[in-house]
Amino acid sequence: MFEYDILARQARARAGIFHTPHGDLQTPVFAPVGTQATVKTLTPEHLKELGASLVLSNTYHLYLRPGDELVAEMGGLHQFMQWPNPMLTDSGGYQVFSLAKMRKIDDDGVTFKSHIDGSTHRFTPEKSISIQENLGADIIMAFDECSDPNDRAYSKIAMERTHRWAERSLNAHLRPDQALFGIVQGGVDPDLRAVSAEFIASLPFPGIAIGGLSVGETKDEMHRTLDVVTPLLPEHKPRYLMGVGTPEDLINGIARGVDIFDCVLPTRLARHNAAFSSTGRLNLMNATFARDPRPIDESCDCYTCRTFTRAYLRHLIVARELLAGTLISIHNLHALVQLVKDIRVMILAGTFTEQLPMLLERWDHNAVKKAAQS
Amino acid sequence: MFEYDILARQARARAGIFHTPHGDLQTPVFAPVGTQATVKTLTPEHLKELGASLVLSNTYHLYLRPGDELVAEMGGLHQFMQWPNPMLTDSGGYQVFSLAKMRKIDDDGVTFKSHIDGSTHRFTPEKSISIQENLGADIIMAFDECSDPNDRAYSKIAMERTHRWAERSLNAHLRPDQALFGIVQGGVDPDLRAVSAEFIASLPFPGIAIGGLSVGETKDEMHRTLDVVTPLLPEHKPRYLMGVGTPEDLINGIARGVDIFDCVLPTRLARHNAAFSSTGRLNLMNATFARDPRPIDESCDCYTCRTFTRAYLRHLIVARELLAGTLISIHNLHALVQLVKDIRVMILAGTFTEQLPMLLERWDHNAVKKAAQS
Repeated sequence: MFEYDILARQARARAGIFHTPHGDLQTPVFAPVGTQATVKTLTPEHLKELGASLVLSNTYHLYLRPGDELVAEMGGLHQFMQWPNPMLTDSGGYQVFSLAKMRKIDDDGVTFKSHIDGSTHRFTPEKSISIQENLGADIIMAFDECSDPNDRAYSKIAMERTHRWAERSLNAHLRPDQALFGIVQGGVDPDLRAVSAEFIASLPFPGIAIGGLSVGETKDEMHRTLDVVTPLLPEHKPRYLMGVGTPEDLINGIARGVDIFDCVLPTRLARHNAAFSSTGRLNLMNATFARDPRPIDESCDCYTCRTFTRAYLRHLIVARELLAGTLISIHNLHALVQLVKDIRVMILAGTFTEQLPMLLERWDHNAVKKAAQS
Repeated sequence: MFEYDILARQARARAGIFHTPHGDLQTPVFAPVGTQATVKTLTPEHLKELGASLVLSNTYHLYLRPGDELVAEMGGLHQFMQWPNPMLTDSGGYQVFSLAKMRKIDDDGVTFKSHIDGSTHRFTPEKSISIQENLGADIIMAFDECSDPNDRAYSKIAMERTHRWAERSLNAHLRPDQALFGIVQGGVDPDLRAVSAEFIASLPFPGIAIGGLSVGETKDEMHRTLDVVTPLLPEHKPRYLMGVGTPEDLINGIARGVDIFDCVLPTRLARHNAAFSSTGRLNLMNATFARDPRPIDESCDCYTCRTFTRAYLRHLIVARELLAGTLISIHNLHALVQLVKDIRVMILAGTFTEQLPMLLERWDHNAVKKAAQS
């Protein structure tokens, strides 16, 4: 269990299989986020149909509502939300960090106030692991502290705490059917990141996550951080870049040796009427789509693009029909899931390096704009 | 086209087939309502899966948004919303009537203000038919005037106007691939209803609707009205009871010779967390369901009941996840669609009359309560 077989490599990119109790995960893989035990507005059947294999859920949210003990009583998260395939939970560290003034961190753990009712709670590494064991995902995370990437002094303190908490998380972890991943922190400082990568790599985690990115740093800082971290990680463990990201982030991450991604972006954009397309993001509320008989993306074969016109989607948005969010979520998630699957095929065929410029040209619309301006 | 074959009769109940350009409709049938060219929160695949065959959409809403001409340009309503099976549009009469102080009725038509932006519009029988021809449903409705059932004088005026408008609707109707139904009005006055039924029955409509019920009258008044109307209607035309209703209304309506029903109730209840069950309506937000591992209804085989627990549905409701509305809508619509299908089988088997008391005991929970109190 939890072996990671690498089937092919190209430069630093890898294609592999991670074995979990709920099936083999073909990597690289993009995981939709089901914050509250549901990927917003989608049924499990939608997720299967759009090609999702791994689904993430959030420890902080499920601890507060409905409670991890209730989920355990109902048979665990897979059974509760009826997702029969691999699942991952975060540790709650990042969510608690995001509460800003509503939390207080000490060396033992974090005391925080619920965003729902202001009640006081406390997470420690041991508590986070206990909650995640109740939830029962296949992949769980060590409790960590995320830092402001622009504050080096704080990044060092947070990193050191993350390392002590990684050891405590390992000691607290009991269930053999869950893979506990350690988390590399260190902000955007290359020295801290190297220290953190080496330390976390030295511990017996079956997989390693890279945290603290996509939290306000520049794209260049994200890439430089990955360039420092992934070469220091063991080859035969999967690497998970947490909370990332955009299509171009996935392409750049895979090229730098990342295997697993998750992000709320596709579903969040969908609820704000924005759709990924190979010609850039479309705001489907735009009046220019009122009589447009084309699908969102003519090169996409998701249910939404196979079935509905831009004109219909725009009508749903203008009429405030919730089905719009469902249909655009299906498309946006499919776009990222499929992009990563396509790259996997390229790595297996040995053509990824060659096709990388084409992929970036197609998906990195900011880079294209920047190039046009320079 | 638009022939109605009656396959079996039991007392006044009928089982038949109504032939439409988008397929045969097996009656009796319950139609989900897709007000704005979508049954709220459901995809067409959900509707097929739950067994829907006929879907209704609203002329008033689609005229205002996105506009009937736009729908026509996009290939008509079937193509626009991707519903390949039979569709029905109302005439806008009831919706405009519901605008209360925002409309003014004269003998030629109705001037009203849009509920969206207050802009002024005018519907006449000719305009309603023209809109419905642009939308392109298989079954369309004559323009009518609904009245307050408690105001006999107004009910008479509205009925007489409805009769004149029925003739004008027939004259305006051009498309041979649409069945135009006349509408019987007359409030809850048996004499007016008899006059209206005989008048509408005398015109060459391929089907006849009964309007102005489920608008504030008592259940007894509804039943007495049906007892007056349906015996006066031609046997070989389908009868459509507009905007009705609850499970017990469907049972009582079929027993009185009705073939087609529609109602927003199943989806509206779902969005307010209420589910039909054979033991009464459940409010799924109730704390007693927090750890309930059962489906909504153990005798139901809809996707929601086959897949999810009450505990999970309650969690979605408490966490304000929109998926709750989708899943309960699937269940509630399936409950009514399946109830009517089950009754059809009973009529074909000649057992409906015998099973009627059991059906009413199972579904008419108000009657059960009333019986217990008396």
